[in-house]
Amino acid sequence: MRERRAVKFELLHGGRRGPRLGRLQIGAIEVPTPAFMPVGTRASVKTLGCEDLEEIGAKLILANTYHLHLRPGADLIQRRGGLHRFMSWEGGILTDSGGFQVHSLAGLRRILPEGVEFRSHLDGSRHLFTPERTVEIQAALGSDIHMVLDVCTTYPAEERQAAAEMETTLRWAERSKRQREQMLSSGAPVGALFGIVQGGLYPRLRQRCARELASLGFDGYALGGLSVGEPASQRPAVMDATLETLPAEDPRYLMGVGTPADILDAVGRGVDLFDCVLPSRNARKGTVFTWDGKMVVKNRVYAEDDTPIDAECGCCACRRYSRAYLRHLFQVGEYLGGRLATIHSLAFYQQLMERIRQAIAEEQFSSFAAATLSRMGVGAVE
Amino acid sequence: MRERRAVKFELLHGGRRGPRLGRLQIGAIEVPTPAFMPVGTRASVKTLGCEDLEEIGAKLILANTYHLHLRPGADLIQRRGGLHRFMSWEGGILTDSGGFQVHSLAGLRRILPEGVEFRSHLDGSRHLFTPERTVEIQAALGSDIHMVLDVCTTYPAEERQAAAEMETTLRWAERSKRQREQMLSSGAPVGALFGIVQGGLYPRLRQRCARELASLGFDGYALGGLSVGEPASQRPAVMDATLETLPAEDPRYLMGVGTPADILDAVGRGVDLFDCVLPSRNARKGTVFTWDGKMVVKNRVYAEDDTPIDAECGCCACRRYSRAYLRHLFQVGEYLGGRLATIHSLAFYQQLMERIRQAIAEEQFSSFAAATLSRMGVGAVE
Repeated sequence: MRERRAVKFELLHGGRRGPRLGRLQIGAIEVPTPAFMPVGTRASVKTLGCEDLEEIGAKLILANTYHLHLRPGADLIQRRGGLHRFMSWEGGILTDSGGFQVHSLAGLRRILPEGVEFRSHLDGSRHLFTPERTVEIQAALGSDIHMVLDVCTTYPAEERQAAAEMETTLRWAERSKRQREQMLSSGAPVGALFGIVQGGLYPRLRQRCARELASLGFDGYALGGLSVGEPASQRPAVMDATLETLPAEDPRYLMGVGTPADILDAVGRGVDLFDCVLPSRNARKGTVFTWDGKMVVKNRVYAEDDTPIDAECGCCACRRYSRAYLRHLFQVGEYLGGRLATIHSLAFYQQLMERIRQAIAEEQFSSFAAATLSRMGVGAVE
Repeated sequence: MRERRAVKFELLHGGRRGPRLGRLQIGAIEVPTPAFMPVGTRASVKTLGCEDLEEIGAKLILANTYHLHLRPGADLIQRRGGLHRFMSWEGGILTDSGGFQVHSLAGLRRILPEGVEFRSHLDGSRHLFTPERTVEIQAALGSDIHMVLDVCTTYPAEERQAAAEMETTLRWAERSKRQREQMLSSGAPVGALFGIVQGGLYPRLRQRCARELASLGFDGYALGGLSVGEPASQRPAVMDATLETLPAEDPRYLMGVGTPADILDAVGRGVDLFDCVLPSRNARKGTVFTWDGKMVVKNRVYAEDDTPIDAECGCCACRRYSRAYLRHLFQVGEYLGGRLATIHSLAFYQQLMERIRQAIAEEQFSSFAAATLSRMGVGAVE
């Protein structure tokens, strides 16, 4: 069993609201924030090896408890020495609790007081995730940061329902925290634990949830239940209400978001951490992100274009290959197309976060964000 | 347009029969033979980038005229500066003429005196490959070594049919050679040209074909129409008759073969060059080659195996990842599984060829081949 690495966050610049700079320390790994986590749901960032993640400069990735619990199983991964050793990744790993996947993938989900009962989307087998069990599974996986089990309120939801789900989320957060403390006091290895703020699109509920979680005390706080189909116009009020209520000194993580425009907006409000399947999923389908906006590289218009995807990008796809070659790979359905596009888009997201951090350090975030959005054009901002 | 690179072969050890050592020089690229060419049919060795091919030590790859003619088209590749620049590969490229794909993939193939008429397997469009046109297309692609258009005699074939197809192959070889010479004399860039020996399973026909091709004079000679469903027991007589007839000083290429056992056998008879989709295709389906034989890495038995695929292999898959992780990737259907397995199996083939060359240099090829086959077990020899 590998040594559990300590997780610490230091706020270097900014406060409760507005753009922040920070440092998330995971053992010897230093993750400067704001940071974007590539998504490695099933212990693999699709099409990439860990050497590719190192090459693009990723320091922290996300894996998924629901998927890994079903296959290959947390016990098996624990016997391999944990997720880091299993997938040969020295960087940080945050595991999502699986609450969202139980909702979006599993059949016959039933929310019970003790937890959530569901059937596997793979074979229909019956499972029960309790808050306690979910912490245990993540501890067995050996991730550096665990997420509490929550009830993700989706859009649309009446206030009464959002309130009930938020209260359940709070009770489960408390039980998750207690479980972690018991494991710690008995000497069992367990990672840092982040709480998740729910409450639908009701700022009052979000604030109550944030306040209660903060008074319980977690290593970090996530904004859940956003980017689940709600109108984008309703997000700012919810985010602002939540962020101003959360303690300034702890990291804030906006789950499952988003486009470069979404990230610029959220950083401006005070978010430190992001994850999203968008750049990698789009890339596999032939659409990449660049400083000049989204680009459908599989389009015919690039068939004779000898320039790289993005002349400003230094990723190994842009250093070596042309748009014409990528377009050909997508046209004929070669695996390499999705891989090169994924390398580029994830490298681009890392570069975006780096320029964001630089702009914040230089106190020029607003003008940087405006210039970037304008350059990317409306196509990129959706 | 890039400068055409000169192709020269030097026989360093051995003669007309028995194991040989040679050096195929392609511009500044030195390809020690016996050599195995990874297959990059559509300008991509499936799942790998050119940096991966460099990493495993491949110096010469194969691409396919039929496929590239249909998509993206030889004209487009020519406008990009040729195949090397298009796919960003500095090593050597041999292009198959497409005769075999016309036979195996295309619809409504008609062998006419002037060439072969066929319909695209993609959209049914009608095409005519003549010997002259096939050389022109390969010259437009800019490959280093072109193959003549042939008629591939498949198994089973009556002697009369095999003879007729062989005679057509000879006439086409002569026209291919003339076309190349005309292009050369008019200053058009064109690569080296290999003839292809056909004649079914009839040693007498094979010898006539080899003799006639040799008297025409090519830069190298291929053995075609083997590994097309015939009983393995009938191959040795055909190969020996052909190899003893071909000039000793030119390279001999056994097309589409094969397993490690097939390669050891053919090297022992005097073959210098190989290509085969087997290692990469099998790898994508979860079966890899190792010094201890074939291994179905997706099998459950490897679920908790923390050792690399092959402890003797130094490829980047074996240096970093375990059988347990690969088995998981295949079980859940992650792209990375096929990629890592492909990297390993193609690296293994390069290592096999390297040890073969070393054994020949040390005059110990027979005992090396016997020991290798015995170690790989019957499972590997099929």
